Amino acid sequence: MYRGAAIRTSVMKKRSRKEIILIALGGNALIKKGEKGTAEEQFRNLKTPISQIARLSKDYKIIITHGNGPQVGNLLLQQECCTSVPKLPLEILVAQTQGQIGYMIESTLDSELMALGADAQKPLVSLISYVVVDEKDPAFLKPSKPIGPVYRKEEISTLPYPTIKTEKGYRRVVASPRPITIVEKKEIISLVENGFIVICCGGGGIPVIRYGRTFSGVDAVIDKDLSSAKLAEEVGADIFIIATDVEGVALRYGKPDQEFLRTINTQEAMEYLSDGYFPPGSMGPKIEAAIAFLEKGGKRAFITSIRSIEAAVKGLTGTEIISSNSIQ
Amino acid sequence: MYRGAAIRTSVMKKRSRKEIILIALGGNALIKKGEKGTAEEQFRNLKTPISQIARLSKDYKIIITHGNGPQVGNLLLQQECCTSVPKLPLEILVAQTQGQIGYMIESTLDSELMALGADAQKPLVSLISYVVVDEKDPAFLKPSKPIGPVYRKEEISTLPYPTIKTEKGYRRVVASPRPITIVEKKEIISLVENGFIVICCGGGGIPVIRYGRTFSGVDAVIDKDLSSAKLAEEVGADIFIIATDVEGVALRYGKPDQEFLRTINTQEAMEYLSDGYFPPGSMGPKIEAAIAFLEKGGKRAFITSIRSIEAAVKGLTGTEIISSNSIQ
Repeated sequence: MYRGAAIRTSVMKKRSRKEIILIALGGNALIKKGEKGTAEEQFRNLKTPISQIARLSKDYKIIITHGNGPQVGNLLLQQECCTSVPKLPLEILVAQTQGQIGYMIESTLDSELMALGADAQKPLVSLISYVVVDEKDPAFLKPSKPIGPVYRKEEISTLPYPTIKTEKGYRRVVASPRPITIVEKKEIISLVENGFIVICCGGGGIPVIRYGRTFSGVDAVIDKDLSSAKLAEEVGADIFIIATDVEGVALRYGKPDQEFLRTINTQEAMEYLSDGYFPPGSMGPKIEAAIAFLEKGGKRAFITSIRSIEAAVKGLTGTEIISSNSIQ
Repeated sequence: MYRGAAIRTSVMKKRSRKEIILIALGGNALIKKGEKGTAEEQFRNLKTPISQIARLSKDYKIIITHGNGPQVGNLLLQQECCTSVPKLPLEILVAQTQGQIGYMIESTLDSELMALGADAQKPLVSLISYVVVDEKDPAFLKPSKPIGPVYRKEEISTLPYPTIKTEKGYRRVVASPRPITIVEKKEIISLVENGFIVICCGGGGIPVIRYGRTFSGVDAVIDKDLSSAKLAEEVGADIFIIATDVEGVALRYGKPDQEFLRTINTQEAMEYLSDGYFPPGSMGPKIEAAIAFLEKGGKRAFITSIRSIEAAVKGLTGTEIISSNSIQ
């Protein structure tokens, strides 16, 4: 905590006028429902959020994070099919998706910035990122995150890892521990301060445990919104945007009496959360992430759709979560 | 040419005292002959070069590049096995290997630097890198680089790409165009100047062609030593080390009258090259890369083994290629 505070202060001192926005792109930024996830589809879909981010980079310093669910799922599927190639642990597959999606985002952003003309050019980097988790995190005792292919019941006894029964069938299950710190945070701060647009923390980051003087990867998946909130805190971001597949946060989502929330404060958000309004696997962690960011000193947090990133920053749509402490 | 020269001059002006070493790691830094390439093998093998590089980082600024042959081959094999997942183009697979190997190198280097103590800590980044090639490069007319799985003769007519007959059987063949420029060069210069150790240009970089205001990936593989030489030139590196599986350059390699070369100048190297002493698929491009680096103003170039990186820098082993112009 003290360390995070120290970093924030030093960032505040060094910071030039432009505010830092961290944008966490949901899986549908790359692969939409019903799509198989060809390269063409992913590049085409990315133009929607990335063209907005290119324009925002005129007025803000930018950090982009992203999910990797379907991409890491595809790599797991491929590993299962192919017996002649050694299976790689999950941490390495997450690293592969950081390479893949980092490249796709960076090259799309390159093109969008070029389209805006010479003035819009900025240095860009896509970074490999790993995130420290605590080996004593209770999540390791009760793995809950289903990943990869669907198995038949008779197959699961032959698998070298635990499975759970899901709606689709049996799936491998891994722990989803909480992010403690982003290993590359100082590097990311330095880059952002030097005017770079940074793409990082893909898939929530590669989960590692620190043993004495080494880092060691673990079979786990960190929620990308929680990692993004941790990064936003550690780099001293001003604005945190969670871009997903709905226009904003709603109570009784999809029901006839659905109620769209334009603004809620962290106190209300925590109450709705504990009352079970937001499902654990979808809106829950996004609300949690927004609260965590604001409680650590972040200024503004938004949950909105991939299509509405710019509009949300302008206050025209989406849900803004505001700190209860700032309402007097 | 002019642009490279301009960059070099500006780099020279800004540079602090420490020289920049660019180290290009060959495939055997990760997977040795006879190994299948498990994650454990790759992490274990990396300790040999990376522990040396950690020590060198005390006295030099460091850039690390690396090959990706077996890793991208495995991804191609997996794609072939698994029909339920959309096949991704080669550029995306190269990006995936940059993620994978970048993570493996960075985390190994992290551990090695931690083992050296607090003074040895430096900021590290693994970057996605793409490299511009010329769509008119004659290599595209005559693809020559075999990649991926081995096919039987009766299979090849069903494949959507050209193949060639190799010793092992039929294989897919792609172009190996020359690198024109590393897209992230300015970013890499800025990072190195700011004291970062940079891991980049994996697998020779993701090959892209520039069409007007966009970059577009192409099915090709750029030789990693030639890309590394281009990067060394563009960032104004002082020393270029090609680390491979032999102690240095030899004439009549593996023959009874093999002659190990401790030092050769670029003029001699070019003569040996045109006399066919160095095979195109192995030592040839390394010699070419060393010559290219020195002709563009680089100071010192070495070809040596993964085990002997430090010793070569100290002049104790390996082959040093020196510029003919500097011998008076």
